[in-house]
Amino acid sequence: MNEAVDLSSLREHLDTDGHDGYLIDDDASDSDQRYVSGFTAPDPYQTLVTREGIHLLVSGLEYGRASKEASADSVTRRSTYDYQQLVAEHGSYEAKSRMLAAFLDDHDVDSLAVPRNFPTGTADGLRDQGVSVTVESEGIIEEIRATKTDWEIDQIRASQRANEAALATAEELIATAEIEDGVLVRDGEPLTSERVKEEIEVTLLRHGCSLDDTIVACGADGADPHDRGSGPLAADELIVIDIFPRDKETGYFADMTRTFARGDPGEEARRRYDVTREAYEAALEAVEAGVTGADVHDVACDIIEEAGYETLRSDPSAGTGFIHSTGHGVGLDIHEQPSVSPAGGELEAGHVISIEPGIYDPDVGGVRIEDLVVVTEDGYENLTDYRVGLEPKGE
Amino acid sequence: MNEAVDLSSLREHLDTDGHDGYLIDDDASDSDQRYVSGFTAPDPYQTLVTREGIHLLVSGLEYGRASKEASADSVTRRSTYDYQQLVAEHGSYEAKSRMLAAFLDDHDVDSLAVPRNFPTGTADGLRDQGVSVTVESEGIIEEIRATKTDWEIDQIRASQRANEAALATAEELIATAEIEDGVLVRDGEPLTSERVKEEIEVTLLRHGCSLDDTIVACGADGADPHDRGSGPLAADELIVIDIFPRDKETGYFADMTRTFARGDPGEEARRRYDVTREAYEAALEAVEAGVTGADVHDVACDIIEEAGYETLRSDPSAGTGFIHSTGHGVGLDIHEQPSVSPAGGELEAGHVISIEPGIYDPDVGGVRIEDLVVVTEDGYENLTDYRVGLEPKGE
Repeated sequence: MNEAVDLSSLREHLDTDGHDGYLIDDDASDSDQRYVSGFTAPDPYQTLVTREGIHLLVSGLEYGRASKEASADSVTRRSTYDYQQLVAEHGSYEAKSRMLAAFLDDHDVDSLAVPRNFPTGTADGLRDQGVSVTVESEGIIEEIRATKTDWEIDQIRASQRANEAALATAEELIATAEIEDGVLVRDGEPLTSERVKEEIEVTLLRHGCSLDDTIVACGADGADPHDRGSGPLAADELIVIDIFPRDKETGYFADMTRTFARGDPGEEARRRYDVTREAYEAALEAVEAGVTGADVHDVACDIIEEAGYETLRSDPSAGTGFIHSTGHGVGLDIHEQPSVSPAGGELEAGHVISIEPGIYDPDVGGVRIEDLVVVTEDGYENLTDYRVGLEPKGE
Repeated sequence: MNEAVDLSSLREHLDTDGHDGYLIDDDASDSDQRYVSGFTAPDPYQTLVTREGIHLLVSGLEYGRASKEASADSVTRRSTYDYQQLVAEHGSYEAKSRMLAAFLDDHDVDSLAVPRNFPTGTADGLRDQGVSVTVESEGIIEEIRATKTDWEIDQIRASQRANEAALATAEELIATAEIEDGVLVRDGEPLTSERVKEEIEVTLLRHGCSLDDTIVACGADGADPHDRGSGPLAADELIVIDIFPRDKETGYFADMTRTFARGDPGEEARRRYDVTREAYEAALEAVEAGVTGADVHDVACDIIEEAGYETLRSDPSAGTGFIHSTGHGVGLDIHEQPSVSPAGGELEAGHVISIEPGIYDPDVGGVRIEDLVVVTEDGYENLTDYRVGLEPKGE
């Protein structure tokens, strides 16, 4: 389990703005709530942060597990507030507000801060019950989550180990395919993006990870950073493989990208690969506590622009070249704070970020190389252990 | 793609309450939005329903795909409202409200209804911009979603086919295991719940489905309907297998449960199996348009109580016996309307519901048998094609 999380900046905010508590009302999909409560459940539950502690309100079904697993000072079940009777008397909408108002009252909370995504139904219902509800618009918990504990870094590292196994499976499928009429072929069938993705997913599953999505994009598909790829993989073309699995137990993500080509993708593609690799290495070298995400992004842009390619820095409307940011935080969400982009603030020790420059053009294809690293006081620790090279290797 | 969805009851609500539109502000996890817009995206987007049509507001990244795929009358990109400039001037929080206010103004919307889970940050931000925002507390879209189109039923049927393949894999693993010292053994290793779940997941993946969770629960584990199960599977014990996969493309779920035992689970366990099967068959026979979910639930309770077991109807605080409801709607969410429980209203043709009575006791284990069916005018169509039987069969 995670060490106790440090919510002091949230409590300072409550003090400054004169609120008695901060309430989250969501389910398993809310990473902020999972982080603060040390608990996750498929159905909605509530997490209240006060000056003194962390208090959970859960259904009877979840009470036993929450009492054991949650990192909370108290766990209360809904029946304490006669929830079913409130539903019978007032309907489920008003019953929830009445139950929550009683729960807040038990913790002396009259004035509440809530996250931006707090349900309006709950906010307006509480207001009807006389509770003051104000949106905390800065995303303080997202900011707290950006700095990982050692335990969190271990979980992300474990997800990246699974990721490496999955990428190795994909690389070998590509490396050992036959080539017939310019198309990769295995077992007499064209080797498709879909087939490679399926083997990636099965490998991740065998390592305790799941993923909703993965990218195996060949040729022009790979030139659109958000195209997941489809159809037969071609020889002499760039193939971008970007995998972002999540550990099913801990919820922590990993992220990695490599670009391969079977045969000869041509001189221009090879040049783009070398420039991307240079940008990736220089950006990694720029990472350390105290520099900003914007600084690191600039280092990658410098190299790509000097090589004669466009970036969003040189042309904000560029459709080819380096058309995304250099990286992002990774943790309980695949995209979280901090940002390694023009908007990126100061990096701190314990931030976990991706470094992933790329160069794109439908006529040539896409190149992207991505590692996942932890920022340290004097540099970074690379959580990724995977060879960089354009030519795929297999047994 | 789904046929045009029938939003007339939502539009009637807008008319009755004097609102100009209904706005959803969420991401891929919101099934209501996916249903109304015919579109899904990992990042938040907005769907506006007015009297005249359905209007989407998306990022530039999603614009091309939304224009092609969404079942909307118009798709607008954020840059139309100079979103980036608004962020630079006002910060991301206020920028979003200003952008949405302009989007609403373009569609002549001053007074807005929103779902209960609409983000409070967006609601309060719009109110600051002079838009009236009221929560629609009845869940009208959930109610619309309960009645499936033929296309939706086909998708659910396809997910249930994948489910049958996964259950067959699990059944065969159990049926063909060796028994050593009372434990199921394969390849010299104890056959664990975890191993069976992994093979279920791999099979689903090969059929285009994913799942976050599945239940393979033996003995006392199976007596807690929410225990996922863990550790070696034992001979002479009941093993509950409940699988609820989701098609990765369409998003539609399926749901099925079978209970098996290797060896002899004992006379009492066999009796409970027979009673559960009788309740399951009788509840299925009770299903038709016009009866209520509560009626169907009562039929299952009657049989289980007559056999001498407790139900939540005979004792609302029962910890053993039939301690959940008979079924629930299944569609883009695994639990949705209608309910086959004491609260269940009238069933309508096109409702897709599970029928899943069970009997539980830690001393005996759990039994549950579950099929997924479509309600028809004079009965039901079973979407499930899987043998019912306590003894597992394998090759």
